[in-house]
Amino acid sequence: MPVRDNVEIGLNRFARRGYDLDEVSIVPSRRTRDHDDVSTSWQIDAFRFDIPLVTSPSDAVMSPATAVAVGQAGGLGVLNAEGLWTRYDDPTDVYRQLRDAASPETGPPTALLQQVYAEPVKPDLVTARIKEMRDSGVTTAVRVSPQHTLQLAPTVLAAGVDLLVIQGTIVSAEHVSKGGEALNLKEFIADLDVPVIVGGAADYQTALHLMRTGAAGVIVGVGADSWSTADAVMGIRVPLASAIADAAAARRDYLDETGGRYVHVIANGRIETSGAIARALACGADAVQVGEPLRAATEAPGGGVWWDSVAAHPRLPRGGTSAPATARGTLEQVLLGPAEAADGRTNLFGALRRTMAKTGYRDLKEFQRVDLVLGGNGAGTAAEGHLLG
Amino acid sequence: MPVRDNVEIGLNRFARRGYDLDEVSIVPSRRTRDHDDVSTSWQIDAFRFDIPLVTSPSDAVMSPATAVAVGQAGGLGVLNAEGLWTRYDDPTDVYRQLRDAASPETGPPTALLQQVYAEPVKPDLVTARIKEMRDSGVTTAVRVSPQHTLQLAPTVLAAGVDLLVIQGTIVSAEHVSKGGEALNLKEFIADLDVPVIVGGAADYQTALHLMRTGAAGVIVGVGADSWSTADAVMGIRVPLASAIADAAAARRDYLDETGGRYVHVIANGRIETSGAIARALACGADAVQVGEPLRAATEAPGGGVWWDSVAAHPRLPRGGTSAPATARGTLEQVLLGPAEAADGRTNLFGALRRTMAKTGYRDLKEFQRVDLVLGGNGAGTAAEGHLLG
Amino acid sequence: MPVRDNVEIGLNRFARRGYDLDEVSIVPSRRTRDHDDVSTSWQIDAFRFDIPLVTSPSDAVMSPATAVAVGQAGGLGVLNAEGLWTRYDDPTDVYRQLRDAASPETGPPTALLQQVYAEPVKPDLVTARIKEMRDSGVTTAVRVSPQHTLQLAPTVLAAGVDLLVIQGTIVSAEHVSKGGEALNLKEFIADLDVPVIVGGAADYQTALHLMRTGAAGVIVGVGADSWSTADAVMGIRVPLASAIADAAAARRDYLDETGGRYVHVIANGRIETSGAIARALACGADAVQVGEPLRAATEAPGGGVWWDSVAAHPRLPRGGTSAPATARGTLEQVLLGPAEAADGRTNLFGALRRTMAKTGYRDLKEFQRVDLVLGGNGAGTAAEGHLLG
Amino acid sequence: MPVRDNVEIGLNRFARRGYDLDEVSIVPSRRTRDHDDVSTSWQIDAFRFDIPLVTSPSDAVMSPATAVAVGQAGGLGVLNAEGLWTRYDDPTDVYRQLRDAASPETGPPTALLQQVYAEPVKPDLVTARIKEMRDSGVTTAVRVSPQHTLQLAPTVLAAGVDLLVIQGTIVSAEHVSKGGEALNLKEFIADLDVPVIVGGAADYQTALHLMRTGAAGVIVGVGADSWSTADAVMGIRVPLASAIADAAAARRDYLDETGGRYVHVIANGRIETSGAIARALACGADAVQVGEPLRAATEAPGGGVWWDSVAAHPRLPRGGTSAPATARGTLEQVLLGPAEAADGRTNLFGALRRTMAKTGYRDLKEFQRVDLVLGGNGAGTAAEGHLLG
Repeated sequence: MPVRDNVEIGLNRFARRGYDLDEVSIVPSRRTRDHDDVSTSWQIDAFRFDIPLVTSPSDAVMSPATAVAVGQAGGLGVLNAEGLWTRYDDPTDVYRQLRDAASPETGPPTALLQQVYAEPVKPDLVTARIKEMRDSGVTTAVRVSPQHTLQLAPTVLAAGVDLLVIQGTIVSAEHVSKGGEALNLKEFIADLDVPVIVGGAADYQTALHLMRTGAAGVIVGVGADSWSTADAVMGIRVPLASAIADAAAARRDYLDETGGRYVHVIANGRIETSGAIARALACGADAVQVGEPLRAATEAPGGGVWWDSVAAHPRLPRGGTSAPATARGTLEQVLLGPAEAADGRTNLFGALRRTMAKTGYRDLKEFQRVDLVLGGNGAGTAAEGHLLG
Repeated sequence: MPVRDNVEIGLNRFARRGYDLDEVSIVPSRRTRDHDDVSTSWQIDAFRFDIPLVTSPSDAVMSPATAVAVGQAGGLGVLNAEGLWTRYDDPTDVYRQLRDAASPETGPPTALLQQVYAEPVKPDLVTARIKEMRDSGVTTAVRVSPQHTLQLAPTVLAAGVDLLVIQGTIVSAEHVSKGGEALNLKEFIADLDVPVIVGGAADYQTALHLMRTGAAGVIVGVGADSWSTADAVMGIRVPLASAIADAAAARRDYLDETGGRYVHVIANGRIETSGAIARALACGADAVQVGEPLRAATEAPGGGVWWDSVAAHPRLPRGGTSAPATARGTLEQVLLGPAEAADGRTNLFGALRRTMAKTGYRDLKEFQRVDLVLGGNGAGTAAEGHLLG
Repeated sequence: MPVRDNVEIGLNRFARRGYDLDEVSIVPSRRTRDHDDVSTSWQIDAFRFDIPLVTSPSDAVMSPATAVAVGQAGGLGVLNAEGLWTRYDDPTDVYRQLRDAASPETGPPTALLQQVYAEPVKPDLVTARIKEMRDSGVTTAVRVSPQHTLQLAPTVLAAGVDLLVIQGTIVSAEHVSKGGEALNLKEFIADLDVPVIVGGAADYQTALHLMRTGAAGVIVGVGADSWSTADAVMGIRVPLASAIADAAAARRDYLDETGGRYVHVIANGRIETSGAIARALACGADAVQVGEPLRAATEAPGGGVWWDSVAAHPRLPRGGTSAPATARGTLEQVLLGPAEAADGRTNLFGALRRTMAKTGYRDLKEFQRVDLVLGGNGAGTAAEGHLLG
Repeated sequence: MPVRDNVEIGLNRFARRGYDLDEVSIVPSRRTRDHDDVSTSWQIDAFRFDIPLVTSPSDAVMSPATAVAVGQAGGLGVLNAEGLWTRYDDPTDVYRQLRDAASPETGPPTALLQQVYAEPVKPDLVTARIKEMRDSGVTTAVRVSPQHTLQLAPTVLAAGVDLLVIQGTIVSAEHVSKGGEALNLKEFIADLDVPVIVGGAADYQTALHLMRTGAAGVIVGVGADSWSTADAVMGIRVPLASAIADAAAARRDYLDETGGRYVHVIANGRIETSGAIARALACGADAVQVGEPLRAATEAPGGGVWWDSVAAHPRLPRGGTSAPATARGTLEQVLLGPAEAADGRTNLFGALRRTMAKTGYRDLKEFQRVDLVLGGNGAGTAAEGHLLG
C-alpha cells in the first residue's frame, strides 16, 4: 500500500497530512474551450447521466417526486428506504411539524427528529415509493443502511430498483459482530442482479476493500455536508480532497488488479457549492453526492430546512439541522441554471461545465487531470462574507 | 532524549512544532465492529473504571455528591481539597452568590471568586467531605496543590482516600525553593500507601521525571479546558496532541527502563467534546480529565456557570469564567447518553464507544494505535457554527 | 518549464503550493531614502504614467469622466466597451436604479444587474465615449471581452484608442471552438497598430503563451477584487503572490527568448489597499489593476456601490456586489492623498512611494527585488478589526 | 550573513518564513522554582530597572507624570519630545477634545489627531517637561524622530535626559537623502554623552548595522501594538518572533565582532498581554516596548483611548485609534498587580515573574533559552473569546 506524507505529531506518533476540498483549487493552465463543446455526462454500469450527481438520501430534500425530478434533470435521485416516506403513509404532516418547529434561526430540533424517526419502516411503503419512481421512467435508486440491508433488500429488489445504495457513516468490507447476523458485503453483492453503490469510506485501504466486494461505486467521505458533526461527536474527520485522491488511487490499483474493472468514486461531504463540485471531480471523483443545496429548490419536501441523515439517531445524533433557506428556483434551476446569485449555490452543474471550458477539458475523465493549487487563504471566505447577489 | 520536528523561527533559535487536539483527527481505516462488543474500561493501580474519566477538580462541577455520581456512572470524581467544600461548612450560599453574580453573558466575576476563595481551608471539612464520598462506596479521590501537599496530606490520608491527585498548573519533579520546605515528590510518594496522580506536565522530559517519582498517573497539559488563559497571561501553551504523544513515549521508555511499570497518561486541557475525548485517547492517553462539559448536568453545584481552578488566584488569576449553560440532562446522561443534541457535549463516553466501533477497536489500549490525520480545516468550526440540535 | 513546490494531496495527486498577496509582506532590510527621491513612474510601449495603475473596467467606478480623471492623476483609466456607457445613451438613470436598489447592507441585486446589462451594446456609443476621453488629452484605453473582440475591434480602433485591453475571466492563447469564429490572438495582435493588454492568466505557461501573441502587457489573476466569486462558483482560485511571481518568471524567460521584448505584468485580484498594491509590485508586477477602492471617490459613477464586471452574467454571475461606501474624497485624493484614515484605502500611491522610501528603492523596477517575508498571522486582520480612523 | 528558511512563493522568487509572537509559546520542560527567587531586573548602560519595560512614547499613555510613575514602578518611561506635551503649554484641553470625540465604539478621529498635531513643537516645553521628570529622580528618557533628531537633540541634551530614544517606523543606519541634511547616526551617537536607543529595525542586517552605530539598544519591530496599520497601508509586516530572534543573532555576532559590546534588543509591536511580554523575552529580547495596555491605568492621560504615534501623520496616517478602555487600576497595578481579571492585561510583569518560576529560570538572560513550541492553534483566540473576568 502506498503511503502519503506523514507528520510526527509527537515522539513516534504519526499522522497523515490531509487536505480539505476548500484548501485545493483549480488553476486554468492550458487552452480554453467553448462551453457548448463540453460534456458533463457520467455512466455507471448501464446507466448514463447528463450530470455526475447522486443525491444525498436526506428526507429534507428527497421525496419520490424530487427523486424523479432529479432524474429528469439528468442526475440520480436517491430515496432513503429508511426515511419518512417509508415510515409514514403520508408524511406531509410530519414535514409540516418539522418545518413549523424550525425558527428563522434554528432548524428542526434534534429531539423532534428522534421522535418522528422512531416510527417503524413499513415494507409496503418501500414497495409503493419505488413503484412511484419507476413509473416515471427515470433510473431508480434507494438507500439502505448496512444494519438493515439484509432485512430490507428483498423488498427493495422485488420492487425493482435500478441501483442499490448501501450507505452508513462508515462502512467496511469486514464488519465484526459477536452476536446477530452481520452483512457480508462480498457475498451479498455477488448474489445481486443490480449494481451497488456502497460507503462511506475514508481512506485508500477501505475504499480498495469495498471495491473488492464487487460494488459498482464507492462513496468516499463521512457524513454529508458541513452539517455533519462526526468531528465534534466522534473525533472523526475526513479531509475530503485527500480522501478522494486516495480512493482514486485505489480505483487505479483495482483496475490494474482486475485487468479492467472500473469502480466509480463518489465524493460525499461538505459539497455545497458548484465550486466544491468542480474541486471534488478535479481531485479524482467520478460523481458527487449532493444534498444540502437542493433544499433551496421550490420542490424540496422539507420546505427549506435541512437535516442530515444521522441527525435523528436515537442515542448519538451526529448531524446538525438548519433554519429554512429561501427558495431560489426550481430543482432544475438549482441544478442547471440560470443563476440569479453569484454564490455558487445555483446552476450547480452549469458552473461545472463552464469550469471545464475555462480549463479546456472536454469530458469529466479528462478533467480529473486538471492542475490544482493548494492555498489561497480566505478567498472563499471573503467572497461569502461579501456576497449579496 | 528523542527530539521532535524543530523549526528555526529566527537565526539559530528553534521551536518544536506542536499540534493541538483539534488539528488531529481519527480516520477509520480497517474493519468496523458492533459497538456492543467494545469496552471503554480503564484500570489504574487496583481501581477499575468503566469509562476513562478523571474529573477536573473544579468546584463549578464537583461536590461530594457529584463526585459520587461520577463514580456510580463508572468514572473517577475528584474533589478539590482546597475548594469551596473544604472552606465553607455549607457552601450553598457561596454558590448562589457566584451564580447570581453571573449574567446571561458573563460568568462569576474574578474579583468575587478571589474573595470567596480567600476563606481558609478547614482540615475538619476535608475529613468530612472525604467521609461523605467514601460512605457511598465509590472510589474516592481528592486534589491537593503542590504548595499545600505537605500540609494537607496527613488529613487527607487519615480520612482514607483511595487516590491522591497532586495537581498544579505546572508540576516538576524538582522544585527549587530558597526558603521554606519544598515538596520532594519522590520521597513523598515513596512513603505513601495510596497511588498518586500528579501533573500537569507539558513535555516528554517532565513527564518522564514525574513517572520516576513513583506516581501511578501523570496529568499532561496545562490548565483545564479552553477557559484557561495560561496563554494570554503567561505565554505558556501546550499543544495537547503533541504533549500526549510525547508523554506516551515517556511511558514506553519508562516501562522499558523499569522492566514493566506502566504509568498512566491522563490528558487535560480543552477537552470539551466527545470528539476531543476520542482524539486524546487516540493520541496515546489512557484517560482524560474532563470538567467544563459537566456543568451542563442538572446536578452541577455551580448551576451551569464555570470557573477554572486557577480563576480565583489572588494575584494572577489565569482562568476564565463562563455564563450559565442550559442543563442538558443528568450527569449520567451527559456521560452515557442518550444525547438530544448533535454537538458532542452529551453522551460523551457513548460516543467514544461508537468511535471505537467504527474504527474496529475492542479496547482502549488497542485504540491508541488508530490512524490519525492532520488537517481538515474548519470542519469542526463549521459544524459548531451551524449546530442547532 | 520550471516547476514550483509540489504537495501530494493524495496518493499520486499533486497540487502546487500557492500564496496569496496577504500572506506575503515586505521587509525593510537595507537603507532608507527620502520619499521625495522616489519615482513610481511606469511606461508601457510609448505611454508613460506617474503611477502604475490600470483601472478595473467596472462600470461602478469607470465613466468617460473618471477615466479622464485617472489619466490626469497619472494612471490609466480603462472604460468597458461593453458596459453601461455603450449600452445606454444616458446611463444616469440606470445608475440611479442600481444605487436605489442597494440598501445600507446590500449592493445592487444580481437580477437587476442581469436585466440592465441585457440591453445591447451600440457601436455608435463606443465611438462617442472614446472620443470624449480622447478629447481630454489623456491616454485612452477600453476593454473588450475575448468573445466580442472581433466584432467590436474595428469600431474601437477607428475611434482611436491608445491601448486595447482584451480581458475575460480566463484568456488563453489557444481557444478551442467547434462552431463559430474563434479569436486567434496572435494573428489579431499582429495586424494591430495599437498595443494590447490581455488577460487574465493564472500561471507561468498561460502567461508565457499570451506574451508570445505579441501583447504589450499580460493581466495576471482571475476576477477582480475580493468580490469575485470564481472560487465558490467555479472552484477556481489564483493565489496571487505566486501567480505574479510565476508570470514575472515568464516575463524574464520571454525576454531572453526574444532577446529583449519586455512584456508587462499587470496584477489583478483582491488589490484593495495600498498595502496590497505594494505587495503586488514587490512580487514582480509592473503595474496593478485596481477597481473597488475607487468607489469611495466622490466622482464614482456608481455612487459608492460596487459590482464586479462578471456580476451581471446572464446565466452564471460570478461577482459579488456591495453596499454603498462612504465617499472619502476626490479620485485624486483616493489615489494621491492626503489620507484622513489609516486603513490603506486612500492615498493609495502616496503610500507606495513611502514604502519604497522606507525600503530604500528609487524606482519600481528595483523595488521588484525587495525582501519578502511569508507569515505574520492575523496582523492585517487585527488592524482591520480595530481600525476606526 | 546567516540565512533563514526560504520559501519559493513563485518561480525564482523567495520569501523568508517568519513567525509572529502569538504563533510561538513557552513550554515548561525542566525544574520549577519559587517565584520569589526570580529576578526580572534589566540593566542598560549604567541604568538598572526592576522590570524590562521601555514604554511606547504614545501621548495616549505617557505624560511627564506617568513617565515618572513608570520609573517608580521599576521601568523606563519614554516621553515623546514631539508629542502633545511639547506642542501645548497645557494639553489638558486637547486631551479632553480627543477623548470627547471618541464614542463607546470608536477612538479619536484621525482627522482630529492630524489637526492637533499640526501645532508646532516648542523647544521651551521640551526643556520644561524633561526638567519635570528629572526632578522626580527617575531615569529620564525622551523620544525624537529621526527626521527631527538634529534639530531637537541640543535642547533635549541640554535639559539633561539620561537616555535618548530615536524612533521612527523604520530607521536604517544609512539614510539616503538628495536634499537637506540627513542624520548620520554613527557620527551623531559618537558625539553624544548619553546612551541611545534606536529603531525600529526589522531584520538581522538592519539590526546589526544599527548596533554598529554605537547605539546602546536597538528597537526591533515596526509600529506599535496591533493598532499599527503598516500592513494595510504599506504592505510592511514584521513577524515579531522571527525578527527578535534575528536581532538577537545580530547581538551575538556583534558581541563577537567587538569582543564584548552587548547591545540590547528591545521588542516592539503587538505586545499587549503579559503572555506576549514573556514570549518576546523568550525569543531573545532584553526588554519590551509596551504602550497600549497602559491606557487601562487610571493615570493614563488619554483617559482610556489609544492612538498610535503615527496615527496623526498629516498625509499617510498608519495607526489605528481605539475607543475608551475601562480603567483597571493604577499604573502600578497594571504593571505589578494584583490582577482582578484573567486576560493577561494587568499584573504584566508579575505574570512574567511567574512564567520564569514555572519554567525554572532565575533571571532574564537565562530565560532567553527557554524551550519554545510553534503551534497550538486558536488557544489564545478561544481564551480571548471566552474571557469575562
